[in-house]
Amino acid sequence: MADCLLCDVRGEAVLWQNAFCRVTLADEPDYPGFLRVILNAHVKDMTDLPASGQGKLMRVVLAAEAALREVMAPDKVNLASLGNVVPHLHWHVIPRFADDPHFPHPVWGARQRDTPHAAPSDLDERLAAALSRLLGCAPETE
Amino acid sequence: MADCLLCDVRGEAVLWQNAFCRVTLADEPDYPGFLRVILNAHVKDMTDLPASGQGKLMRVVLAAEAALREVMAPDKVNLASLGNVVPHLHWHVIPRFADDPHFPHPVWGARQRDTPHAAPSDLDERLAAALSRLLGCAPETE
Repeated sequence: MADCLLCDVRGEAVLWQNAFCRVTLADEPDYPGFLRVILNAHVKDMTDLPASGQGKLMRVVLAAEAALREVMAPDKVNLASLGNVVPHLHWHVIPRFADDPHFPHPVWGARQRDTPHAAPSDLDERLAAALSRLLGCAPETE
Repeated sequence: MADCLLCDVRGEAVLWQNAFCRVTLADEPDYPGFLRVILNAHVKDMTDLPASGQGKLMRVVLAAEAALREVMAPDKVNLASLGNVVPHLHWHVIPRFADDPHFPHPVWGARQRDTPHAAPSDLDERLAAALSRLLGCAPETE
């Protein structure tokens, strides 16, 4: 769809993708490992998808959670599908640590402290490898 | 689990429940229709559940979204599983309107205006009826 930020894939750091959706690394310096799972089609809400599509998307969202837990061992993972600004179905999958800038509040809440979480230099590669192992490497077709 | 707010069901306004989870009305005066889907067992993250349990819980979460869309016709539905404060698996299912107090920000973000959304007096009953129709009335067993 013209003028939709999430229909335009240019400039995204894609860690995993298939014909249905993609997993990207969010540009959030306070939150290394902040992932987004973005449906490729321009659809607004989860209940606009058929049950099979809902299941396929959640499988990828939960693989993103599993990859974060395996690679980063966060204190909690936050999952959210909001889409008020960009009504194109996408999920935020956010590793949270007790000393991160907003904990225990949501990352959209009041900032509590200035302590970005240190992340290993090869974090992105390790997350991509975990996603490929959990979800398979080969592009899926519909 | 002792001392877990979500293991203690006293005082909750339950709109639908079975042996696995319950749908409650949040006590959020700014957001009539703000629903929570709460797993009955004390489990922390979605990926602590087996795939079958993940699917069962998401079916209820998405029925809550469908009920809100049917009864309230919101501009968007927000879904979130955070659990930083209470690490007992639960989902927020939030009807959002362009004139609500935080739109287009998340409800946890900066307040934008003072315009609580007017809701019909029988909203809770209508949501409960929609949930029962979508999910069935009879308690499910594991």
